[in-house]
Amino acid sequence: MLLHLSTWAEIEAYLKRSTTVVVPIGSNEQHGPTGLLGTDWLCPEIIAHEAHKAGDILVAPTFNVGMAQHHLDFPGTIALRPSTFMLAIGDWVRSLAHHGFDRIFFLNGHGGNVATIEAAFSELYADASYRGGKSGFALRLKNWWDLQGVQKLAYQQFPTGHGSHATPSEIAVTQWAYPDAIKTANYAPQIAPTGPIREASDFRARYADGRMGSNPAQASPEKGGELVKLAVQGLLEEVRAFGAERAPLAAE
Amino acid sequence: MLLHLSTWAEIEAYLKRSTTVVVPIGSNEQHGPTGLLGTDWLCPEIIAHEAHKAGDILVAPTFNVGMAQHHLDFPGTIALRPSTFMLAIGDWVRSLAHHGFDRIFFLNGHGGNVATIEAAFSELYADASYRGGKSGFALRLKNWWDLQGVQKLAYQQFPTGHGSHATPSEIAVTQWAYPDAIKTANYAPQIAPTGPIREASDFRARYADGRMGSNPAQASPEKGGELVKLAVQGLLEEVRAFGAERAPLAAE
Amino acid sequence: MLLHLSTWAEIEAYLKRSTTVVVPIGSNEQHGPTGLLGTDWLCPEIIAHEAHKAGDILVAPTFNVGMAQHHLDFPGTIALRPSTFMLAIGDWVRSLAHHGFDRIFFLNGHGGNVATIEAAFSELYADASYRGGKSGFALRLKNWWDLQGVQKLAYQQFPTGHGSHATPSEIAVTQWAYPDAIKTANYAPQIAPTGPIREASDFRARYADGRMGSNPAQASPEKGGELVKLAVQGLLEEVRAFGAERAPLAAE
Amino acid sequence: MLLHLSTWAEIEAYLKRSTTVVVPIGSNEQHGPTGLLGTDWLCPEIIAHEAHKAGDILVAPTFNVGMAQHHLDFPGTIALRPSTFMLAIGDWVRSLAHHGFDRIFFLNGHGGNVATIEAAFSELYADASYRGGKSGFALRLKNWWDLQGVQKLAYQQFPTGHGSHATPSEIAVTQWAYPDAIKTANYAPQIAPTGPIREASDFRARYADGRMGSNPAQASPEKGGELVKLAVQGLLEEVRAFGAERAPLAAE
Amino acid sequence: MLLHLSTWAEIEAYLKRSTTVVVPIGSNEQHGPTGLLGTDWLCPEIIAHEAHKAGDILVAPTFNVGMAQHHLDFPGTIALRPSTFMLAIGDWVRSLAHHGFDRIFFLNGHGGNVATIEAAFSELYADASYRGGKSGFALRLKNWWDLQGVQKLAYQQFPTGHGSHATPSEIAVTQWAYPDAIKTANYAPQIAPTGPIREASDFRARYADGRMGSNPAQASPEKGGELVKLAVQGLLEEVRAFGAERAPLAAE
Amino acid sequence: MLLHLSTWAEIEAYLKRSTTVVVPIGSNEQHGPTGLLGTDWLCPEIIAHEAHKAGDILVAPTFNVGMAQHHLDFPGTIALRPSTFMLAIGDWVRSLAHHGFDRIFFLNGHGGNVATIEAAFSELYADASYRGGKSGFALRLKNWWDLQGVQKLAYQQFPTGHGSHATPSEIAVTQWAYPDAIKTANYAPQIAPTGPIREASDFRARYADGRMGSNPAQASPEKGGELVKLAVQGLLEEVRAFGAERAPLAAE
Repeated sequence: MLLHLSTWAEIEAYLKRSTTVVVPIGSNEQHGPTGLLGTDWLCPEIIAHEAHKAGDILVAPTFNVGMAQHHLDFPGTIALRPSTFMLAIGDWVRSLAHHGFDRIFFLNGHGGNVATIEAAFSELYADASYRGGKSGFALRLKNWWDLQGVQKLAYQQFPTGHGSHATPSEIAVTQWAYPDAIKTANYAPQIAPTGPIREASDFRARYADGRMGSNPAQASPEKGGELVKLAVQGLLEEVRAFGAERAPLAAE
Repeated sequence: MLLHLSTWAEIEAYLKRSTTVVVPIGSNEQHGPTGLLGTDWLCPEIIAHEAHKAGDILVAPTFNVGMAQHHLDFPGTIALRPSTFMLAIGDWVRSLAHHGFDRIFFLNGHGGNVATIEAAFSELYADASYRGGKSGFALRLKNWWDLQGVQKLAYQQFPTGHGSHATPSEIAVTQWAYPDAIKTANYAPQIAPTGPIREASDFRARYADGRMGSNPAQASPEKGGELVKLAVQGLLEEVRAFGAERAPLAAE
Repeated sequence: MLLHLSTWAEIEAYLKRSTTVVVPIGSNEQHGPTGLLGTDWLCPEIIAHEAHKAGDILVAPTFNVGMAQHHLDFPGTIALRPSTFMLAIGDWVRSLAHHGFDRIFFLNGHGGNVATIEAAFSELYADASYRGGKSGFALRLKNWWDLQGVQKLAYQQFPTGHGSHATPSEIAVTQWAYPDAIKTANYAPQIAPTGPIREASDFRARYADGRMGSNPAQASPEKGGELVKLAVQGLLEEVRAFGAERAPLAAE
Repeated sequence: MLLHLSTWAEIEAYLKRSTTVVVPIGSNEQHGPTGLLGTDWLCPEIIAHEAHKAGDILVAPTFNVGMAQHHLDFPGTIALRPSTFMLAIGDWVRSLAHHGFDRIFFLNGHGGNVATIEAAFSELYADASYRGGKSGFALRLKNWWDLQGVQKLAYQQFPTGHGSHATPSEIAVTQWAYPDAIKTANYAPQIAPTGPIREASDFRARYADGRMGSNPAQASPEKGGELVKLAVQGLLEEVRAFGAERAPLAAE
Repeated sequence: MLLHLSTWAEIEAYLKRSTTVVVPIGSNEQHGPTGLLGTDWLCPEIIAHEAHKAGDILVAPTFNVGMAQHHLDFPGTIALRPSTFMLAIGDWVRSLAHHGFDRIFFLNGHGGNVATIEAAFSELYADASYRGGKSGFALRLKNWWDLQGVQKLAYQQFPTGHGSHATPSEIAVTQWAYPDAIKTANYAPQIAPTGPIREASDFRARYADGRMGSNPAQASPEKGGELVKLAVQGLLEEVRAFGAERAPLAAE
Repeated sequence: MLLHLSTWAEIEAYLKRSTTVVVPIGSNEQHGPTGLLGTDWLCPEIIAHEAHKAGDILVAPTFNVGMAQHHLDFPGTIALRPSTFMLAIGDWVRSLAHHGFDRIFFLNGHGGNVATIEAAFSELYADASYRGGKSGFALRLKNWWDLQGVQKLAYQQFPTGHGSHATPSEIAVTQWAYPDAIKTANYAPQIAPTGPIREASDFRARYADGRMGSNPAQASPEKGGELVKLAVQGLLEEVRAFGAERAPLAAE
């Protein structure tokens, strides 16, 4: 089910058979000369929406803006400060937990989000820890490329020039889903440089067209489709296992 | 243009011909027994995306969660605290302004958002005011039903039972765009009660199925299409006029 | 009763016959060449203090600084950021609710406060909504000019040039209460311009002497007295009705 | 001058002859069985308003709510959290400094405010310190009883039972200014106990009627008048000296 | 016991015989040409660690950075904003109280910390006060020089030029504990000037080498040892009395 | 150099030859039945202090409390909320950067800190990114076990039962430095279980004595000494390389 196309009564009914919900989360940020600004939130949305056709999972609206401060010198990037991002994740989780969702699964599409999302989880758990009680929920973060077999397939598809930002794999996924929005460019150099990530001006000085270590020219809708197919399987299995996980004490 | 399906280079080029951007903003909250949970963010998204086909405007990703604390006792609602909402709006605006957008137009789909969005605007302007300088941007909030002629059409379509939450007009708009997600129910009473809005438990006690003053049974995709058509015209005109507005002093 | 001239024991006794309290709230900001900087907090204070002579209501101290960032380029303005304003309103409400006041009525004197006060109310209600309980209080915001008949009288008194800032009606109210502080000036133009409200530098560029759409030369202490008289009646009736309002469920 | 009864143009003119402003600041909190809830903000307001009749000083509106969490179990107390209080003081100072006031003098009426006001000052100075620049203002906090000779007079008037909360000296000051609001009660014991200050429930358990170490029965309007007279002289001298103080480096 | 050299099981056992914990707290800031940057956190740490050898007290890790914004123009200073400092103190207290420590004693080494620590205490108590319950802990702040007899001894040792920052007494304490880190310099003037404390640039302009009113040349390890010896006795007695203090109501 | 045992003048001199500073950072939290509560801040402190004897590096005071909410159900743990931790790291960095340190190296001793420290770095960089300027500093986080060769040695020393919390390697390091504080216990089971990390009550239910996957019985001071020796070499090399790193653009 897609939560946003459901009624509250349908969600109430869903909660009787499952208390797990999947939240696609990403970032709206530059992805090099040919990658879509929405790449990082589109990828988990694409995979989660495909998965909802293949299995009985509930998919929340997509959290489409994240930790992208380093990309701000490229037009179109929209970034939340980590502190804002954490507060917003907190409100999403508290809202969903209020309804009885006790397994909240974030399917992430942006590596730069990971630290902040994990910090947000700790902030949420801390409320219960200081108070000396139970949080009432378990939170999980999974990058879509870390789903079973996906990273391996990506490296098979793109043995060189996969890189870490504006990668051919993420661009391929969006090409598969949005074939009308495929862009082309001459990449110079073919494989982008690598290095550290600091503030936006430093980033733009290091990575002139926005890519990091990648050669997106290798992307194709077909490869994207293969990645999506595998990711859907991995997601359904992860969500099933997460929902089946039991708390440590039978007596709780 | 849809920002999320564009590259940073395309946005850079767009900025040379326009510094105005439209941000659809709404809420993910219960809309009675038949309204979609996404209604309030889908309506401005539908209208803005239609408008982008009809005119040269730039549409940002949809800000899909807002001020919905009063709906939290209906499953599926996701609410931001006003303080979180303000911080997030602030980061969106600062990001867009950083790129040179100096006319940021929020097309809103949720009445409950209005106060907080306006407070967020004041918070943003205050940064410049305390510092004694210019903000560098003008912000505008417009509800889609306040676009030229739209409210009037809605009252013609639904002379009784329009109400203020889960209205037939907003449901009609989503029916037009998502005909596969049309839901039905028996409404009792046919027209929902009205009253104040306070915390979630009070809200659910007052409004048993989530509607306020409305009879959504009157909605139809056709009526939704008429509303969208008129709203698209109104939006394009508003955005044009906003972009053409000049600052008070020629010398600035 | 005036809370600040009472003892705690008197308030304890008052709470046995009423759990409603009136909080005058306004702003300390420029009001054109002749309006007092205190106009927006003096008006609700004047009306509430008059009302306490005419009926058994309890009036809290005046919340005398509000959302006035746009006036900061005129000397004497003192502004709270919306976020600060919300926190302070929150602490006032939590303090009063702690004592058992469950009907807290804000009599407002500044249009620019409305959005932030309503956002503050939502923030307060949200605490209960996320937690899944009752807030224990009902909050109401009423501008003094929206009290029964007041706006209508003002437009009768000032059919042209009432405007929206430094209005003859608010200045008349302060003239009636503080006749020794009546100021005069030559207004040029007689009726001030209108337009949008943004940051302070933009405001001062648009509205050279601080007025918006108004001709304060029409104010007189007599007209102010008429307005106060009507507002007092309206306030007493509003407070009575608010105190008499019952919660939605008899069983609560 | 009283700022709130002035126009912005009058403040602009005042700034040409002085950049010092006095802010009465206090608390709205229980003051035992006979002390007014407003005592702590009324005292500095009374003294500052008297002083403005005797000398050319500018008095801002009264900051009438402060750090009073420990009194919350006595009805009528309104308390700001220290963190809220600091933010609000910050916005007042930034507003006044924006106009060119570079000597901001807080005349305080509540001992419990001192730590938080000083922390607020440090927070304000820290902005400049981290940035590596000048703050542009000097801040001073003075309790009215610490003005030249006042404490000494109070101890002469009340050699025993002065105490530290609901003191005969502060009650005398309000009796002098508000003779119609003088209250009486039988005090048991005549002199209240002393001890530590912690949370509100602890406070009420220790100090049954709200007093700390005081015997307010000794207060009289005449003694209050003597205190006010001396405080007015002290305030004018302090403000004069503060305004005359020069920065450390002539070259700045 | 030193908490950081203990196991959780040892702390669990300790809690059965005492619920009091001592937290050394200070600041890392310039202390003139010869004082160590760590002086203000080393002094309470030295005294508390000595005391733990002489009596059965539990000493927490040292809170080594505090309110030092005014020293930021001298290299090596590390300062927390008051608001940050308060949040961190809050988390320390909540952590310790969670374990059952209900007497938390801060042994402070920096006068500039006092206001902020007290504001932090009020913020912590306020949580209970608004909620209408007990905090579950008592907090105490004591400067090491205010321990029984210490200040008096310091003034005997240093009848002139003790001053208020980079004092010979605090430097003597660190000399006693860290004889290998004794520094020397020519002081000019021999006794430093005094004056107000504002932002860092103002501070450095007033106090060229960082001292305030002091002549640290008088310090010696022997004098430091005498001060430590007396402070240890005072601390043990204070902690004993604090632990023995009873709540106001037997029935609680 | 140890910053806290230096004077400001010595730091001023140091800055002329190096602008790099090392900050040991850890956590004060339970480490199983035999690990010291200070383990996670002692380890980086031990290594950094040893390194300062072997090379010309500057070591700041130890940041001794971190993200440990999950350990709060074991006495002695002191935890900062992630949001507090981020603010405090921010103030440390801003202080050090204010002095001219543009290479700030955090040597970390707690895996649970990583996400929050990285989020704090992003928050710091974001200030520059939104503003459109340079941050003026580069930040680096390195866990001591990730220094060249250290992890490999640890796995050689402890091929089974190294685990992830209360590991024999970290306990060995503290045993080497604090031989008088070596503790013993019977571990049951010998190797602790593994699993997820959530709130404190969940953690204690899963990990009865606080260990995760480890068998600390294998620790010895000798092994700790070997680890320290290797870590010192790695740290000096990392710091040297970090200090030598050049910004991306020669022209900056």
